[in-house]
Amino acid sequence: MNKNIIVGQSGGPTSAINSSLAGVIDMGIKSGAEHVYGMVKGISGLLNEEYVDLGTIINDDEKRELLKRTPSSFLKSCRHRLPDDITGSDEYRKIFEILEKLDVGYFFYIGGNDSMDTILKLSKYAESISSDIKFIGVPKTIDNDLTITDHTPGYGSAAKYIATAMKEIIPDATVYGTSYVTVVEIMGRDAGWLTAASALAKSEDCEGVDLIYLPEFVFDMDEFVEKVRKLQEKKKSLVIAVSEGIKLADGRYVCEFNPDDSSLDAFGHRSLTGTSRFLAHTLNRELKTKSRYIELSTLQRCASHIASLTDINEAYEAGCSAVKAAYNGETGKVVVFERVSAKPYECSTGLADVADIANKERYVPKEWYDHDKCQMMKEYIDYARPLIEGELMPVYKNGVPRHIKL
Amino acid sequence: MNKNIIVGQSGGPTSAINSSLAGVIDMGIKSGAEHVYGMVKGISGLLNEEYVDLGTIINDDEKRELLKRTPSSFLKSCRHRLPDDITGSDEYRKIFEILEKLDVGYFFYIGGNDSMDTILKLSKYAESISSDIKFIGVPKTIDNDLTITDHTPGYGSAAKYIATAMKEIIPDATVYGTSYVTVVEIMGRDAGWLTAASALAKSEDCEGVDLIYLPEFVFDMDEFVEKVRKLQEKKKSLVIAVSEGIKLADGRYVCEFNPDDSSLDAFGHRSLTGTSRFLAHTLNRELKTKSRYIELSTLQRCASHIASLTDINEAYEAGCSAVKAAYNGETGKVVVFERVSAKPYECSTGLADVADIANKERYVPKEWYDHDKCQMMKEYIDYARPLIEGELMPVYKNGVPRHIKL
Repeated sequence: MNKNIIVGQSGGPTSAINSSLAGVIDMGIKSGAEHVYGMVKGISGLLNEEYVDLGTIINDDEKRELLKRTPSSFLKSCRHRLPDDITGSDEYRKIFEILEKLDVGYFFYIGGNDSMDTILKLSKYAESISSDIKFIGVPKTIDNDLTITDHTPGYGSAAKYIATAMKEIIPDATVYGTSYVTVVEIMGRDAGWLTAASALAKSEDCEGVDLIYLPEFVFDMDEFVEKVRKLQEKKKSLVIAVSEGIKLADGRYVCEFNPDDSSLDAFGHRSLTGTSRFLAHTLNRELKTKSRYIELSTLQRCASHIASLTDINEAYEAGCSAVKAAYNGETGKVVVFERVSAKPYECSTGLADVADIANKERYVPKEWYDHDKCQMMKEYIDYARPLIEGELMPVYKNGVPRHIKL
Repeated sequence: MNKNIIVGQSGGPTSAINSSLAGVIDMGIKSGAEHVYGMVKGISGLLNEEYVDLGTIINDDEKRELLKRTPSSFLKSCRHRLPDDITGSDEYRKIFEILEKLDVGYFFYIGGNDSMDTILKLSKYAESISSDIKFIGVPKTIDNDLTITDHTPGYGSAAKYIATAMKEIIPDATVYGTSYVTVVEIMGRDAGWLTAASALAKSEDCEGVDLIYLPEFVFDMDEFVEKVRKLQEKKKSLVIAVSEGIKLADGRYVCEFNPDDSSLDAFGHRSLTGTSRFLAHTLNRELKTKSRYIELSTLQRCASHIASLTDINEAYEAGCSAVKAAYNGETGKVVVFERVSAKPYECSTGLADVADIANKERYVPKEWYDHDKCQMMKEYIDYARPLIEGELMPVYKNGVPRHIKL
């Protein structure tokens, strides 16, 4: 009898994470798995034996199509990190007991680089106890900051949302033609991939954003104010895109300068929100220009109504490829994308050792950014444009997009 | 020879304002106007003789369709208030000189209640000098706060965006199932129509927002904290919708309590941003719950990629009706909507005296709000649902929606 499959989702939500789940379910059933189990709330749910039989839930084409269009993680999520000492912890023993009980032969985890750490540890533990269970990671992160892979599922949809939002914000923010600076804050603590996507708004019908600031480069406040002052000599209304994670030369985040100390919550955790607010206030004070800040906030990761079809299809393929790899006997691997051809864009899936991906980050190449003009270079545009192409039309009901709920 | 037409746009942008413009252009040309002029930057542009010949710009179906899909004001905007003393000011004399020079017989102004003030004053001045020029207002405002009309063009699209965004934010914000409150801030200083639209997210696949706070009702901070505490006993992750304009019993805006005083800019102008931020921090401090704020900001008025087809079509009809009314000899009027039938929804256009609309506001009826549960009643849902129905699909190019630019 064929072994069963189990799949979980972990880390922050994206618009594409459920498309990868659909890929795992479809290819799992196609490959002959009797049950495709879904752990609810990732690995921490599994530890409490919280799981569902996905084959009985996603059991027709309509539900499958809705699943692809559903934002956030259908199976819920967690931020649980397995113990570093794989031999001395009960958690591993318990997980494998549950997996044996469910007769699971193939384990898939859809998540970012923290989640790939789970795959790394579980596959190591499996090796240590000579278990046959295969562990494969399916990457997802809007941040696009995983190494080895050309890009990550989830990035294309977030980038499409950001480019579209900027294309709508720019005519809105410049409609009066008066002295007015709009600072738009975009996610990405250390890597500027999402902020860079604001450059994709530029087109024959849109002048584009006036300045772009990535977290990969030291931010200088005086230089910034001076750049805005000079630009305003020619053009009164400006739109500026900044990463939430921009830092001064001394390492302090710009958002830390807000007097309300909103960056620290009651638990002492630092949130990076407030960068655009601080910059807008600074420009208002220093240049006596009107200013406004806009934080794209979580909308950039959950706006599935404007998902990129390329992204959704690739995320689905990543799910399928993970299943194929596991059935081919692979374990301790992560699905990666390889750009086979740039023009026309063509992408294929491959595998990387999870140890080469987990807990590592990839940044925007320095040479893709024009530091003087604060704009993205053609290399970035050529890289990112194909990833936002195509639309997966929502299924509307009563005026709003339909989703599927566990 | 037929007289010419001139049309302008004024006040804050919406997703539907350009559809009304398309209606004026189409019906103007159909009615035999040789020129349909567009004032650039509204009445203040006209005073500088800034205008374009719209018939030569919007000259094919493709451009007309793009115009309907273009956010913000195609003709740019202004916030110019004509002098209250219509006899003692040179501005009126100058405007009429320019109108005579352009052989204008019909003047249309698309805008909110401030802009209707312009129609009121110009029609009064015309009467005082026995001018034959007809002045008709075409309403637009996402705020839905005009009197007499059933609703305003622009509201349906903004409401659709808000409902869709909430439907995406809710699964995102509750994905971990941990103690987490997300406070979403929605526009509307005095009228809660937009915040109410968050209630439209609720459906079989979405539990909806947990609490809704409108500016029509006094906000009590202790009561709010207590309500959240009680709700969290049953459900850890909550999503709350608040209007930017909620006020305490003593009349102070909630956003004024932010320590960084961000509500006052260098010019001393008050912006209402910061309400959700203050509430999220308060909950974090008082209840030791994690919290996040999301400001929908200007996206709610410019997200034309998810415009309501009902809204876009009605906005177009409002433009057409304005032209028909002027050709019928009407002046000093505003186009209004009348709901002919609730189920099935049917709406027709009519005319109201501009004096009855200009400078007045309409609020959410108190009986449409359940003050105890902080939820909208069925009456509101039945009223608003038809307004967000239908989709006007964007024309995509290179992965982003195409617009048309002056």
